[in-house]
Amino acid sequence: MEQTATLAPLAFETHPSQYKHWKLSFDGPVATLSMDVREDAGLRADYKLKLNSYDLGVDIELADAIQRIRFEHPDVHAVVITSLKERVFCAGANIFMLGGSSHGFKVNFCKFTNETRLAIEDASRHSGIRFLAALNGICAGGGYELALACDEIVLVDDGSSAVSLPETPLLGVLPGTGGLTRVVDKRKVRRDHADFFATVAEGVKGKRAVEWRLVDAVYPTSRFKEEVARRARELAAQSDRPDGGRGIELGPLHPVVTDTAVTYGFVALTIDRAKRVAEITVKAPDEAQPETPEAILEAGDRFWPLKAFRELDDALLRLRLNEPEVGTIVMRTSGDPAAVLAVDRTLDAQRHHWAVREIIHFIKRTLKRMDLTSRSFFALIEPGSAFAGTLFELALAADRAYMLDDPDRPNAIQLSAMNGGSYPMSTGLSRLQTRFLGDPGTVDELLSTGGPFEPQDALAAGLVFSAPDDLDWEDEVRLAIEERVSLSPDALTGMEANLRFAGPETMETKIFGRLTAWQNWIFQRPNAVGERGALKVYGRQGRAEFDWKRC
Amino acid sequence: MEQTATLAPLAFETHPSQYKHWKLSFDGPVATLSMDVREDAGLRADYKLKLNSYDLGVDIELADAIQRIRFEHPDVHAVVITSLKERVFCAGANIFMLGGSSHGFKVNFCKFTNETRLAIEDASRHSGIRFLAALNGICAGGGYELALACDEIVLVDDGSSAVSLPETPLLGVLPGTGGLTRVVDKRKVRRDHADFFATVAEGVKGKRAVEWRLVDAVYPTSRFKEEVARRARELAAQSDRPDGGRGIELGPLHPVVTDTAVTYGFVALTIDRAKRVAEITVKAPDEAQPETPEAILEAGDRFWPLKAFRELDDALLRLRLNEPEVGTIVMRTSGDPAAVLAVDRTLDAQRHHWAVREIIHFIKRTLKRMDLTSRSFFALIEPGSAFAGTLFELALAADRAYMLDDPDRPNAIQLSAMNGGSYPMSTGLSRLQTRFLGDPGTVDELLSTGGPFEPQDALAAGLVFSAPDDLDWEDEVRLAIEERVSLSPDALTGMEANLRFAGPETMETKIFGRLTAWQNWIFQRPNAVGERGALKVYGRQGRAEFDWKRC
Repeated sequence: MEQTATLAPLAFETHPSQYKHWKLSFDGPVATLSMDVREDAGLRADYKLKLNSYDLGVDIELADAIQRIRFEHPDVHAVVITSLKERVFCAGANIFMLGGSSHGFKVNFCKFTNETRLAIEDASRHSGIRFLAALNGICAGGGYELALACDEIVLVDDGSSAVSLPETPLLGVLPGTGGLTRVVDKRKVRRDHADFFATVAEGVKGKRAVEWRLVDAVYPTSRFKEEVARRARELAAQSDRPDGGRGIELGPLHPVVTDTAVTYGFVALTIDRAKRVAEITVKAPDEAQPETPEAILEAGDRFWPLKAFRELDDALLRLRLNEPEVGTIVMRTSGDPAAVLAVDRTLDAQRHHWAVREIIHFIKRTLKRMDLTSRSFFALIEPGSAFAGTLFELALAADRAYMLDDPDRPNAIQLSAMNGGSYPMSTGLSRLQTRFLGDPGTVDELLSTGGPFEPQDALAAGLVFSAPDDLDWEDEVRLAIEERVSLSPDALTGMEANLRFAGPETMETKIFGRLTAWQNWIFQRPNAVGERGALKVYGRQGRAEFDWKRC
Repeated sequence: MEQTATLAPLAFETHPSQYKHWKLSFDGPVATLSMDVREDAGLRADYKLKLNSYDLGVDIELADAIQRIRFEHPDVHAVVITSLKERVFCAGANIFMLGGSSHGFKVNFCKFTNETRLAIEDASRHSGIRFLAALNGICAGGGYELALACDEIVLVDDGSSAVSLPETPLLGVLPGTGGLTRVVDKRKVRRDHADFFATVAEGVKGKRAVEWRLVDAVYPTSRFKEEVARRARELAAQSDRPDGGRGIELGPLHPVVTDTAVTYGFVALTIDRAKRVAEITVKAPDEAQPETPEAILEAGDRFWPLKAFRELDDALLRLRLNEPEVGTIVMRTSGDPAAVLAVDRTLDAQRHHWAVREIIHFIKRTLKRMDLTSRSFFALIEPGSAFAGTLFELALAADRAYMLDDPDRPNAIQLSAMNGGSYPMSTGLSRLQTRFLGDPGTVDELLSTGGPFEPQDALAAGLVFSAPDDLDWEDEVRLAIEERVSLSPDALTGMEANLRFAGPETMETKIFGRLTAWQNWIFQRPNAVGERGALKVYGRQGRAEFDWKRC
């Protein structure tokens, strides 16, 4: 039975004081994130989160913890991810939760957990926080996929604890949150070893797990804790984070939520369910913003770019999970573009300060979240808007941008240094590079000019899709949206997943493209989700029954 | 109604004298392939191939024609692909054929057409044959995807002829044979233009089609033929192919086909449907092989590597289309490894001769066909086998290789120069490079040794998965196969599609990974194939009805 339709609207904010499933503790430069999932505290009542298995609620807390470590604890240089359960690290995503979830919920659940795991790797690569997975017991499926996202994996050698990806042999699905990709592409496990490993439910343990590169080291129970602590200290020593000083506390967003709107300080989301269209408006700063690291730390989570993009991130997540039928999102901005450009100058000048670095990478991740949101985005650039610099990325991330050309009402877009690669897509390219893949020289030209670009100049420069005049504007935009919402939602999802990511592929795009697309396919197949499908039969009497055709 | 189950077993051999849908003509260095599809000559009776729409039978002829041009006509330096129908180039894959096909058939149909289109690009890149798509009329969907595979596209400018990808707006599916990928990655059409183009059924014509890079040039009807001829001559002039001389005629393979076996000269395929296992054995040469280009031309299609791999290619295609439930393929070889290595020395030494070049690239394409076949491959290396050089690629392409270690019966594998990059995978890496992604230095070391590697040496070198002794061999191999055939066929397909392609992605892997996986997903969705799905409703009364949830 698909029960997720009855879920109350999901919210994505939490705080360590509210965590049900994780303990966050600190010991000098090392933080420890300990999984201790409460069986009876799942998001739905139809499953128990046994053996540290997880659902979306568990992962929302993990995402929050990683984020807070980055912003609130600049003195943390390494993170140990482990478990408080005896002989159990994590049994992976809860199977009964998956079995009872709609296809759309499964897809969005996997997408979110993928983003959380990539956020760990992002923190390692860009924030100088190393992650050590300390596997104190069985580590299966999504549990091992979480470990794979860490820089290093150590496993207890107690004769029974193994790492495993039992999805294929037990459940007839894939280790779909990065498992297959990271095994062969990140850890470079040999293909035949990976093939064997991913087809045996019991997994691999001890020396063989090390030889096959599945883990970095194994230690006997007696030495496990001390070796983990030692290695965590060594990893912490590699960091370029500050040794102390204040962080940026991430306070609650306090949106005003009604049935058809979510209103934040700088972001407003409105929903028209009958039309299946949402609008998101992002406001430019309305007062002077800090320019020095000290003043930014003082402003904390009220600093405009951090506040605005935290709000946008929250709005996107609510749309994904709570409004599945809203297929088209209109992106607008408002306010003074000069105020955005002033912030961009600060971000660019102070990018080497740890806090500014965090803010830039957070904006980057939010924009990636938009790239990966399976809804159509149309940006509307109208007089009074503020599509400049960082906010122009919203137009670049959109599938199309329309710009009103009204001689009586000035309207311009502008670029800043921040459009020059500060917010790369998951391909590694900036959105401007992706846009001008066929004319790479154009990017530097446009960046050196910067603008402002009036509508016809923007059109000629290739920065917008269309620039209708005031007579045509309303009809053209209305028709474009009406046509969009009439198309097959599945075809649009597949089309956008292909057209948005031109250029190189990375481990990240492989996870969201290749791996996720296959997993979504399998999640549709009767062999997994039919009445006798492996995912449905799991834990019940009897065996799965398969249609043996390979395709 | 899914009717493909009633199809007679498909065969993949044909000859220009038997073509129903294409005319192949020659004018000096320019060949012209003209599409003229016979409406009533489809593979099934439940659709008519109107407006040059195509089914697998049409594409089998196209694949044959491209292949024959490469081997039989070395003096052809450019190919024009056009149509003999007035004002119609090609309407794409036949929708009624798709609507009446099983999921597995749709997937395999798309895979084959993708391989044919990639064979065009392969001939351009590696054989010095340039392709010009001369679009003399409407060019929709798969028709435009065929054009996209050519080096250049010219379109008649008659006020109505357009290029289009109407799959998403009309059928609720993707242009899934490379269309989306080639638009943004090969032709580098700007993302918003591509988004618009792929969502309007009527497509884009004239000047805008050129400006958006969708075609290279448009010409009025009056000048179209002469401009095509002019440009074809220019393209032909870029070739490094010989100006004349004999080709290699590709004679019929004449396999002996029974209900459970297909037996060729060097390849034998046997099928055990009850066990869902097939065995393919490839024999080494059993007599001296030619060593000079002249002698190779004289031997023609009897030259061992060409004959053996043509047979293997045919066997793989039969398995894909005719034996969908046979999920595991055991690969064996037999004969004298020294004879294979002798051929490898010839291939390596003569690789710059056009004919040897063709043979090497044909072997490469056959091995890629194996990589892309969604069946599990286990190679069994036993005494009397010939897993050396080119034939060892069969073990490298397999998901696992088992090697018998019997002290009384010598058994060894060997590498040759041909394992060093002559047969790259679609990632661009050799199979040895893929295998040792984590230890890149190993590849050169192993190649410089070359072997022979006895079982324990092969195991230590990482060249085989397992080397059981004679006591364990039978049980270990039998259990491995029994376990494999018990697993979900869908999960295995997805797993193998991820584990086989570690390393970089290319346009080719994007087509088979990202694009195809999304298309397969959509082909499963009720919005496409349900009773009111877009693909089912097409051409009938009424409109498709969608579940509007995006995921």
